[in-house]
Amino acid sequence: MTPITPFSGRRAGAELNRMRTAVPLVHCLTNSVVTAFNANVLLAAGAAPAMVVEPQEAAAFAPVASALYVNVGTLTAAQAAAISVAVDAAVAAGTPWTLDPVAVGALAWRSTFCAGLVARRPTVIRGNPSEILALAGAGGGGRGVDSTADSAGALEAAVRLARQSGAVVAVTGATDYISDGETTLALSGGDAMLQRVTGTGCSLSALAAAMSAGGEVLPAVAAACALMKLAGEQAARASSGPGSFAVALLDALASIDAAALAARWPQ
Amino acid sequence: MTPITPFSGRRAGAELNRMRTAVPLVHCLTNSVVTAFNANVLLAAGAAPAMVVEPQEAAAFAPVASALYVNVGTLTAAQAAAISVAVDAAVAAGTPWTLDPVAVGALAWRSTFCAGLVARRPTVIRGNPSEILALAGAGGGGRGVDSTADSAGALEAAVRLARQSGAVVAVTGATDYISDGETTLALSGGDAMLQRVTGTGCSLSALAAAMSAGGEVLPAVAAACALMKLAGEQAARASSGPGSFAVALLDALASIDAAALAARWPQ
Amino acid sequence: MTPITPFSGRRAGAELNRMRTAVPLVHCLTNSVVTAFNANVLLAAGAAPAMVVEPQEAAAFAPVASALYVNVGTLTAAQAAAISVAVDAAVAAGTPWTLDPVAVGALAWRSTFCAGLVARRPTVIRGNPSEILALAGAGGGGRGVDSTADSAGALEAAVRLARQSGAVVAVTGATDYISDGETTLALSGGDAMLQRVTGTGCSLSALAAAMSAGGEVLPAVAAACALMKLAGEQAARASSGPGSFAVALLDALASIDAAALAARWPQ
Repeated sequence: MTPITPFSGRRAGAELNRMRTAVPLVHCLTNSVVTAFNANVLLAAGAAPAMVVEPQEAAAFAPVASALYVNVGTLTAAQAAAISVAVDAAVAAGTPWTLDPVAVGALAWRSTFCAGLVARRPTVIRGNPSEILALAGAGGGGRGVDSTADSAGALEAAVRLARQSGAVVAVTGATDYISDGETTLALSGGDAMLQRVTGTGCSLSALAAAMSAGGEVLPAVAAACALMKLAGEQAARASSGPGSFAVALLDALASIDAAALAARWPQ
Repeated sequence: MTPITPFSGRRAGAELNRMRTAVPLVHCLTNSVVTAFNANVLLAAGAAPAMVVEPQEAAAFAPVASALYVNVGTLTAAQAAAISVAVDAAVAAGTPWTLDPVAVGALAWRSTFCAGLVARRPTVIRGNPSEILALAGAGGGGRGVDSTADSAGALEAAVRLARQSGAVVAVTGATDYISDGETTLALSGGDAMLQRVTGTGCSLSALAAAMSAGGEVLPAVAAACALMKLAGEQAARASSGPGSFAVALLDALASIDAAALAARWPQ
Repeated sequence: MTPITPFSGRRAGAELNRMRTAVPLVHCLTNSVVTAFNANVLLAAGAAPAMVVEPQEAAAFAPVASALYVNVGTLTAAQAAAISVAVDAAVAAGTPWTLDPVAVGALAWRSTFCAGLVARRPTVIRGNPSEILALAGAGGGGRGVDSTADSAGALEAAVRLARQSGAVVAVTGATDYISDGETTLALSGGDAMLQRVTGTGCSLSALAAAMSAGGEVLPAVAAACALMKLAGEQAARASSGPGSFAVALLDALASIDAAALAARWPQ
């Protein structure tokens, strides 16, 4: 049994305030479906996105950025080259970097590529249960972005992956588990409507990247999870379908403050 | 005169229920303008989108998917290669595939490419009148995504194209005609605001792909047309401009049920 | 001191009416973050977007289009090639073209590329203060899309750049300055929320391209600036966060008419 450390909404609020004061510049190498939504989520939450994609520019930009966010959802050979040089530059510069291993395990080529990325010691890995199971070498499968496993079923894999990779690993679902291999936080909430809008999981990874810049990584990633969950809950109450939910989600990401996080998870 | 068979909203509702139960996984190779909107339309309606774009992954994924949707709106040489291998894999696996021949006829390179695709016998072709006229070899023109012809003026071309290609052909506008070369359905409605939001026509093609998976193709494509038309009508009533229309369209795609389709087209 | 000519909302309204009557076809070679939003802004305002990206098609399409809009925000080597042939074709055909030099100055590769574009005499250049300072050779910097300078601080650089390049140069911020090197217009307004949604600056460039087709360029670009500023003001009043602001912005771009521009800037 993995011991679970209580999650503190008050601490998450402190991380949110820290991020908003810093306005971290997040270098995004993300998939083509969610590019605009990732950028708008970062802007709404208080960070600054920058998509710099050509290899020579990506290598120059990664050290300038506060954080690097890598998402393999629509990986191409050209993007793989850009990701590779950007990760090298980020690692060399000490820039924290986050990996979203979309659909790893379901497709062979990206699985090999992601295994190579994990070996370069990402600061954060955020995935659904199928993806975390696959990355941890526990098989997996899934149909792509869907997850066919419950997050609790991937908890042990997440802890193991954190120990192997040195990353803080977040496996997310109705309950999110965030682990550095020693300490594991758990956080429940959110809304099922988050599955009906493309890019909410990817955007959580982008938020984790933003939060990880200049902070203590484990509580920073947990704060990103909490912000997205509470925004999903508020958006569900303010909307009447997936279109208005996505709009309300962005509004909520901008309006939620430290006090709201502390009140939602009082602990 | 092409004989027109009456369209049944009740049958369309049965197709919608079938699709929602199956949650088809739609492999999308689509244009860069509408990628996110296509995904959100599919999610709202009850299908599952997956954009897998690198040739080696696209070839592996097409047989796993329930349907393949190909859109040439922003065709590049790299995307043409991915489309080509994905179509081959889909055909070999018996996966139904839908072609949206955006701006064919107006641009030479994509016209040649689309002619080659039509020869590989798509399951569904969905286009505006200019595009269907061009694909059927009846000239055409247009300025790209705009159509300079009325859908009735492309009806004969649609029937001929269906016979030539073996596809169910949908030529859409204020009235949609859907033909397999023998039977032709007609369906009127929708709202002019659908022309003020990018990607509604492309998204109709994506819905046609989703509906075509595991169903009888002619009524399945007609159901996709009906769903988009009714969603457009409901969204127009619930909105005050193109921004709020797009949001309301996604809400309507999620909330419309079989009974609503049957009531709208009682026949 | 650069002399400032008063801006006339009435004249801007006339330009808007001219554009809406013409429905200019705007060929967009833009960045991957804002593609859909650029298209929706153009459609909302009354223009027709077309994204034709493969070099051979882009070269064929630029002369057919009413205007060409080039944005280097996510420049790749492949896109640089497409931009290059499209600009050549536009220049040869006399098609007006607009350059949005996103993040020029902050990144070396695109800076060299943009210097080459400026030498090909764009019709319009629209940028933030950092970008205009960099293009005019006055240093600059910035962190990318953010501007670290005030627009007034880039006014002299804008006038000089206009004289050097032959373009109408718009440097935008809380106050927009639009100059052809002889006459300079100034225009204040808008809303800070425009910075919280990705692509509003890029979309202003797209609107400037649309307005420049077939009009007198200086007042046409000023009209684009006025339309975006007033839409931002109306959207801020009708929304409660960045998500609903973006939706309301599109609604406002569609509903604002000549009278509204004349009333907002009576002069």
